[in-house]
Amino acid sequence: MRIIVVGGTGTIGKAVVSELAKRHTVIVAGFTHGDVQVNIRDIQSIENMYQSVGQFDAVVSTVGKVHFGSLADMTAENYFVGLQDKLMGQVNLVTAGLARIQDGGSFTLTSGILSADPIRYGASASMVNGAIDSFCKAAAIEMTRQIRINAVSPTVITESLEDYGDYFHGFESVPAARAALAYSKSVEGAQTGQVYQIWR
Amino acid sequence: MRIIVVGGTGTIGKAVVSELAKRHTVIVAGFTHGDVQVNIRDIQSIENMYQSVGQFDAVVSTVGKVHFGSLADMTAENYFVGLQDKLMGQVNLVTAGLARIQDGGSFTLTSGILSADPIRYGASASMVNGAIDSFCKAAAIEMTRQIRINAVSPTVITESLEDYGDYFHGFESVPAARAALAYSKSVEGAQTGQVYQIWR
Repeated sequence: MRIIVVGGTGTIGKAVVSELAKRHTVIVAGFTHGDVQVNIRDIQSIENMYQSVGQFDAVVSTVGKVHFGSLADMTAENYFVGLQDKLMGQVNLVTAGLARIQDGGSFTLTSGILSADPIRYGASASMVNGAIDSFCKAAAIEMTRQIRINAVSPTVITESLEDYGDYFHGFESVPAARAALAYSKSVEGAQTGQVYQIWR
Repeated sequence: MRIIVVGGTGTIGKAVVSELAKRHTVIVAGFTHGDVQVNIRDIQSIENMYQSVGQFDAVVSTVGKVHFGSLADMTAENYFVGLQDKLMGQVNLVTAGLARIQDGGSFTLTSGILSADPIRYGASASMVNGAIDSFCKAAAIEMTRQIRINAVSPTVITESLEDYGDYFHGFESVPAARAALAYSKSVEGAQTGQVYQIWR
C-alpha cells in the first residue's frame, strides 16, 4: 500500500511510520518537514498534498493542536483553535481525500483519552476528541467503494511525558510504539467506524 | 429557583418549561420569541441576556442548528454551522454564564443520540453531539462554587417525527415530556458531568 502519514514527524507519527514502513510505502506529510508539506487548516494545501502524492491507499493523521487553559479563562477563540486544527484539520483530510483515495482505502484519525477521562485545563481537548470519535462512527456508514475510517484514541504517550506529564499525573502512559499498533490495525485490518482506545 | 430555558419555545424546550414551571420561575429565552431574546452565536447577545435576566440559578439549553448533508457533499463551511451554532452556541452560554450564575447553579446542554448511533447525512450532528457530551464531562471537573453541568442526549422526539422522521426510520422516539424529565433531573438533582441518554 501507499500510505500518507500526516504528522509522521511527530512523536506518535514517527512510531506509526516505523510500524507501517515494514510492509508498505509510507509518505510522510508534515507542516515544515517530511516528504511533502501540508497545512491541515487549509483545504487547498491538502488538495495540493494529495495531488503531489498521486495514488494512495490510506491516510493516517497523527496531528492536531488544541488550546489548554482553565475553564474560567477559555474564550470562544481558544476553543476555535482545537475546532479548526485538531478537529476540522483532520476532517478536511477526509473531505478532500474521499474522492481521491483508492477503492478499499482507509482514513485513520487521532482523538485521545480526554474525551471520557478529563483533566484540568482540558475542556477544549475533551470537546475535540469527543467530536472526532463520533465523526468517525458517523462518516464510516456513509463511505462507498469499501473505504473505511477509524479513530485511534491514545492516552498520554510515554515519550511525551516530559512535555505533558504534569497534566496527566496518575494516568498510565503508553509507548508510542504500542499506540502505533492501533494505527496498523486500522490501516491493515478491515474494521470501520471504530474507536481504538489505547488507554492503558 | 430562577431558571433560564434557552430555546424554551421549541419542541423540547416547551416540555422542559412545562416541567420546571411547576416548581420554579422559568425565563424563556428565544431567538425571536420568549421572555428575552438571544443569539447564541454572539457572546455579546448572551451577555445582554444574562444582564437583563438578573440573578439566576440554572441555565437549560435546548437549542442548536447543524447542517444535514451527505458525507461526500459536506464542506468545511457546512460543518462549521454545527460547530458555531449547536456546539459553541451552547458552550458560549456556559462561558458567559459561569461568573454570573448563583452558587450551586447548573448548566444543562443538549446533545443527541447521533453521537453513538449515526444516520445517513448526520456526520456533522454526530460530531457536534460527541463534542458536547465530552465538553460537559470535562467542564464539570473545573467548575467551582458547587456549579454543575450535564448534557441531555435525546433520541428523536415523537413530536418532531413529522419533520425529521425520514432520517430516523427504525429509531424509537420519545415524547418531549419524557425527555424533559432528564432536564429536571439535571437541574434539580445534584449530579454533574453526566450525559443523560434518553435513547428509548
